[in-house]
Amino acid sequence: MVSEGEAFCPGHVTAFFEVHDDPSPRTKGSRGAGLCLSLGVRTVARVRDAPRQSVDILVNERRQKAEVTQRVAEKLTGSRSFEVKILSETPLPVSQGFGVSAAAALSTALALDDALGLGLPRDELVSVAHETEVECGTGLGDVVPASLGGMDLRLKPGAPGRSEVRTYPVKADLLLAVLGPEMPTKTVLRDPAKVAAINRVGGPLIDEFSRDPSLERLFDIGNRFAEETGLANPTVLEVIRASRMFGRATMAMLGNSVFASGRSDQLATLYLRFGTLQRCEVDNEGARLL
Amino acid sequence: MVSEGEAFCPGHVTAFFEVHDDPSPRTKGSRGAGLCLSLGVRTVARVRDAPRQSVDILVNERRQKAEVTQRVAEKLTGSRSFEVKILSETPLPVSQGFGVSAAAALSTALALDDALGLGLPRDELVSVAHETEVECGTGLGDVVPASLGGMDLRLKPGAPGRSEVRTYPVKADLLLAVLGPEMPTKTVLRDPAKVAAINRVGGPLIDEFSRDPSLERLFDIGNRFAEETGLANPTVLEVIRASRMFGRATMAMLGNSVFASGRSDQLATLYLRFGTLQRCEVDNEGARLL
Repeated sequence: MVSEGEAFCPGHVTAFFEVHDDPSPRTKGSRGAGLCLSLGVRTVARVRDAPRQSVDILVNERRQKAEVTQRVAEKLTGSRSFEVKILSETPLPVSQGFGVSAAAALSTALALDDALGLGLPRDELVSVAHETEVECGTGLGDVVPASLGGMDLRLKPGAPGRSEVRTYPVKADLLLAVLGPEMPTKTVLRDPAKVAAINRVGGPLIDEFSRDPSLERLFDIGNRFAEETGLANPTVLEVIRASRMFGRATMAMLGNSVFASGRSDQLATLYLRFGTLQRCEVDNEGARLL
Repeated sequence: MVSEGEAFCPGHVTAFFEVHDDPSPRTKGSRGAGLCLSLGVRTVARVRDAPRQSVDILVNERRQKAEVTQRVAEKLTGSRSFEVKILSETPLPVSQGFGVSAAAALSTALALDDALGLGLPRDELVSVAHETEVECGTGLGDVVPASLGGMDLRLKPGAPGRSEVRTYPVKADLLLAVLGPEMPTKTVLRDPAKVAAINRVGGPLIDEFSRDPSLERLFDIGNRFAEETGLANPTVLEVIRASRMFGRATMAMLGNSVFASGRSDQLATLYLRFGTLQRCEVDNEGARLL
């Protein structure tokens, strides 16, 4: 038997957040706010009966370690002996705050559930992806909002059933600009001083945003978070400030990158002086089978 | 003892080319024409006495296989027992026709020669990088022009001493747009039908360009090469055609990408509808120690 499932999960940017530690990875996570991107990860899962279990992962046609995706595939396959091929395609770079590991994990969970005919509840698939992302230390809060689409306000951390998330449909063109080297989430979250700064600054800003959530305030409050936590380097701060002439930009957490909305042509000219640029929209649908 | 060397090698785009096979990797290569990019690979080589030899490669702070770089480092280190660390940084994507493997290999050769105090002749370092790139099948003609800078016309293939290359200094702003998935050089060059098409179309075009080399003709002849070889997919062809309103663009061989020169703002707006964008200039210096 050979069977196949295919799914898309949007990328996700976070403007500001707060870390919530917990011994259970389904309860651990982050509070915060962000946006789903029309650029994301598209995954085909192909399974075939085989004498022993194997999981093979190709990202953009290249064999990858992709630890989160690997573990999600192993969890869903269980002890059954299948040859599993996970073929993911994405135009987004990793470790730049675009939620690629989360989108790869969740699109894999949806596609593989379909290919294996498991019929697991959607919330369980989202929970497996969230839990695995947390266990691997590659992210805390992208999976759940990426499953939902739109602009998100995450009021309680964790997997579905434990988290509390409000989402707001948004129609906006976005620019994504990568301005510096990769910023692996793991490295930042291992630094207690950085986590302390994130939580000291992030908590009150989430409360402030929750009183009147809007796309403009997502950017404005994100700017304060980027500056006050010290996570933004001088280039990112310069670009954020210069963007105000033409719209709004804020740092994509956690990456040396920004996302922006406004007069795209002028913003593009500005960003091309500093780095790599992509255009997209807000995805209001969330992760889905194709 | 710990010592360090640091080098930069420009990226390199090819507009059209012809494959020259030969049993000797120093003679094998390509004829063709292209441009050196102010974006490239910056490499620090760090060596330390150690009980046994080891080579460790980080690209953008991430451990990578980087076969070409690994082999170059092994060749230069020889049988001496050193702990070698190669730290490369690049904003350019791989397998998109920007000569990243060549730039990584040549910057490594220069930096490691300096760190080890070998004092090998520059031509020998360029030859080692060329030969290794050819052995690995990751490229045929980027190393030598990237060592020189400017716009290049490669009249005879191979390493320095065997090749014949003319270079022309060029002052131009360039846009680099990635429009589709990676196109590993190895995959294309393994396909005899593609190589036959490349050589049938490429040979006469190189001759035509050599009669009157200019930046404009590099683009115009590149357009014919991209179209007549069938290497360009419909998106690349559409983007090349649409670019004529604002300047000139042609396909970066071998990648699902284009490089362009002209009215940057309008070109940028166009390209952002299709993919990822970077800006740079022509590098007229070539690979160098820093």
